[in-house]
Amino acid sequence: MYGLLNGVRVIEGASFIAAPFCALSLAQLGAEVIRFDTVGGGPDFHRWPRDPSGASFYWEGLNRSKKSIAINLADPRGRELAAALVTAPGEGGGIFVTNYPVTGFLSHDRLAARRADLITARIMGHADGGNAVDYTVNSAMGIPMMTGPADHPNIPVNHVLPAWDLLTGSTAATSVLAALISRRATGLGQEIRVPLSDVAAATLGTLGQVAEVLVTGRDRPKIGNDLFGAFGRDFVTGDGRRLMIVAITSRQWSGLVEALNIEAGVATLEAELGVSFAVDEGLRYEHRDRLGALVEHAVSTRSATHLATRLDEAGACWGPYRTLSEAVAIEKPFLPEGGLFTDVDHVSGHTYPTPGYAASFLGLQRHAPVRAPKLGEHTEEVLASVLAMPSHEIATLHDSGIVQSSGAHA
Amino acid sequence: MYGLLNGVRVIEGASFIAAPFCALSLAQLGAEVIRFDTVGGGPDFHRWPRDPSGASFYWEGLNRSKKSIAINLADPRGRELAAALVTAPGEGGGIFVTNYPVTGFLSHDRLAARRADLITARIMGHADGGNAVDYTVNSAMGIPMMTGPADHPNIPVNHVLPAWDLLTGSTAATSVLAALISRRATGLGQEIRVPLSDVAAATLGTLGQVAEVLVTGRDRPKIGNDLFGAFGRDFVTGDGRRLMIVAITSRQWSGLVEALNIEAGVATLEAELGVSFAVDEGLRYEHRDRLGALVEHAVSTRSATHLATRLDEAGACWGPYRTLSEAVAIEKPFLPEGGLFTDVDHVSGHTYPTPGYAASFLGLQRHAPVRAPKLGEHTEEVLASVLAMPSHEIATLHDSGIVQSSGAHA
Repeated sequence: MYGLLNGVRVIEGASFIAAPFCALSLAQLGAEVIRFDTVGGGPDFHRWPRDPSGASFYWEGLNRSKKSIAINLADPRGRELAAALVTAPGEGGGIFVTNYPVTGFLSHDRLAARRADLITARIMGHADGGNAVDYTVNSAMGIPMMTGPADHPNIPVNHVLPAWDLLTGSTAATSVLAALISRRATGLGQEIRVPLSDVAAATLGTLGQVAEVLVTGRDRPKIGNDLFGAFGRDFVTGDGRRLMIVAITSRQWSGLVEALNIEAGVATLEAELGVSFAVDEGLRYEHRDRLGALVEHAVSTRSATHLATRLDEAGACWGPYRTLSEAVAIEKPFLPEGGLFTDVDHVSGHTYPTPGYAASFLGLQRHAPVRAPKLGEHTEEVLASVLAMPSHEIATLHDSGIVQSSGAHA
Repeated sequence: MYGLLNGVRVIEGASFIAAPFCALSLAQLGAEVIRFDTVGGGPDFHRWPRDPSGASFYWEGLNRSKKSIAINLADPRGRELAAALVTAPGEGGGIFVTNYPVTGFLSHDRLAARRADLITARIMGHADGGNAVDYTVNSAMGIPMMTGPADHPNIPVNHVLPAWDLLTGSTAATSVLAALISRRATGLGQEIRVPLSDVAAATLGTLGQVAEVLVTGRDRPKIGNDLFGAFGRDFVTGDGRRLMIVAITSRQWSGLVEALNIEAGVATLEAELGVSFAVDEGLRYEHRDRLGALVEHAVSTRSATHLATRLDEAGACWGPYRTLSEAVAIEKPFLPEGGLFTDVDHVSGHTYPTPGYAASFLGLQRHAPVRAPKLGEHTEEVLASVLAMPSHEIATLHDSGIVQSSGAHA
C-alpha cells in the first residue's frame, strides 16, 4: 500500500483474476477501490484454493485493500445503484474496472451517458465477446505444445500459473492510469477493452515468436527444461538437490565456468567445434547438449551447499528448485525482514503472511497490507460517502433487500 | 500506438525482457521512449529468436515504437551523456526505466542530484541485488514442481513463457504512471524497484497459494492438464483434435452439459455421490475423474467441427490446442481485420504481422505499430532535441567515438 493515487476512486464490478487483479494493483497504489458484488457473492466468492471450512484464499488474496458493497443485481433498483456508483461525481472518480459483458446495464455507452468522462476498463475473453479463459487462450496460442519433455512432442502441457490473466489485469491497470493522465489533460473518458486473447497474441508478437514461426516456417519444438536461445536447464547436485542454472549474459557464463572449474573442458570443446562460447549465447544454446554434459558432471560431483557459495561468489545465475511450501519458509521475499510480506488477520480466521504491492517505492512509506473485506462490509459507508445517501434511504434499501451489509461494523 | 501519454518522455537504459517491455508499453500508449544502448548493442541485441542472418526478432519485438541512441558507455563522456539524457529538463521528462545495478553511474541518487523529481523504475532479480532471471525465480517459487504430468511428481517442468519477466515489466509500467500522477500532484520523484522475485512471491500471495500451503500444510500436487479448483482439461475428439474444455462458472458448466448431451450421466453421478455440480465448481474439481470420463466419452465420439458449433451455441468455454504457426494463421487476434496486428517492414528485412498495444481504446485512433529502430538511428535527433546540442558538438561526439549513428537517415 502506497499513497500515490490518493483521491482516485475505482469501482470494480468483476470476478475471477484479471479484473480484480487490475483493481488490486490500483488499490495498492493508493486508490480507493470499491468492489460491488451481488448479494451472496459473485461466481468467484468460493473459488479454490480454500480452507477446510470453505473460505476462499483466492478471494481473500485478490480483494485485499478494497471496500465491499453487496447489491442485489437481479433487481433493477440494485442495477441502478451499481450504475450510480460507477458514474458518481468527483474528479478522481468515474473509473470502472469490470468483466461484465460489453452490452447490458453496465455497457460503457449507457454509463457514459451519465458521466461523459467515464473510464471503463473491460476485461474480455476474446475481442468479439466470445467466451475464453486463461487456459483456453493458452492452448489456442500454442504454449502447451512448446512446454514439457522433448520426447513427448504431441502431448500438450498446460501451465499452472494463470499468466494471461495476470498480464491482462496488469495491462488493464497500466491502461487505466494512462487514460486517467489523458483525461486530466483533455477531459475525455475512454472505453478500454482488454481481451485475454489479444494480450496473449500481442505478447507472442513482442517476444519475436510470431516473426519466428512466420519467417522460419517452423514451430519451436519442445525442449524440456532447456532455456531457449541461451544456456540453461536443471541439474542435479551430488547430494540430490536440483538447481536451475542459467547463462544468458557473458558475465553469467564466465561466472558459471569459473564456479564449476570447467575452463579446460569448455576450451577443449571450443577448439573441437571451432567456436567461442564467451559472448554468443546462441552458440551456447546450439551446443547445449555438449556444454550441458560438462556442467552436469561438475554439478553432480558437488554438494548443493558448496555450489551455492561458489556460484554466488563467481556471479553465476542460478536458483534452486523448491516446492512452494519450501519457498515460503526460506525465500527472502516471503520473510518479514524483506518488508513485502506482513502477517495479516484475515476474514477466514487465519493469520498468514500477506504481500503488499510488488514494487517498492523507496521514498514512500509502505503501509501494511489490508485484508480483504467481508462481503458487504462497507455497504453503508459506500452509499453514504459516494452517493451521499441519507441513512434512512440506506435503511430502506436494506429492508427491501436491495443491498446487504456484513454487519461487521454495525 | 495511442496518443494518451503525449508529452511524456521516457529514457530506457536496459536489456532483455522486463524493462524493455515496461518502456514498450509506455511507448505504445504515446510516450516518447528513447532507448540508449552501448555502441554495438547491449547484451540482448542478438538474442534468439533470430532469423538465419542473425537479426534478432526478439530485439525487434521488444523495441518497437522506440528511438535509439548508441553511446559508448565504457567512456566517461558517454556515461555523462546517458545521465544527461535521463535528467534532461521538461515536465514530461525525468522518467528512467532500467535494469542497471542499484549502484554505479546510473544510481537513482546520483541522477536525482541532477533532477530531483526523477522517477526511476529499476527492474532487479532479487531485492537485495542478487542475480536472478525469470527461470531461476520460477524454479525457486515452486511452479515447475506443480506443472506437468501427475505421474512424475518429482520431475520439474519449466514454463516456456517468461511470465515473471512480462508481469514485472507490466507492473513497472503501472508503477511509473502512478509515480507520474503523484509527481504532478506533489512535485516529488520516486525510486521504484521491481524485483522479479518480489513480483513472483507477491503474485502467489495474491492468488491465495501462499495461504493454501501455510494453512493446509500441503503443497499443491501436479495434476497434469487439469484445471485446479474447477472442471477443465484437455480432451481428444473423435477425429483426433485436442480441445481444452473448461467449466468454472455455472453457465459454463450448464453449457457444457447441454452441448455434449450428458445430462443423464451427470444426473446419475450426482445421485450416486449425493452432490450437485450445478453451482459448486469445487465439487466438479473433486470429482473431476468421474466427470472427465463422461466428457471424454462424449468428446471422443464427436468431430471437432461438430463440437465447436455445439459448444459455442451452448455457451460453453473451450479452446483448441494449436501450435503457434497454426494460431497465427487462424486465431482472430493475429488477423488483419482484428486491428491488433498490422504488417510492418522491419529492419531485419522481413515484413510480418506486428502487434499494437494489447488493449483497445475505442474512442481513439489506433495508430499502426512502428518498427524497432536501427541501433543509433536517432542518435543525432535525440542529442539535438533532448539535450539541445548544436550540430558541431554532435559531430565532435561522433568523431571521437562517444556516440554512433546507424546512418539510416544521414
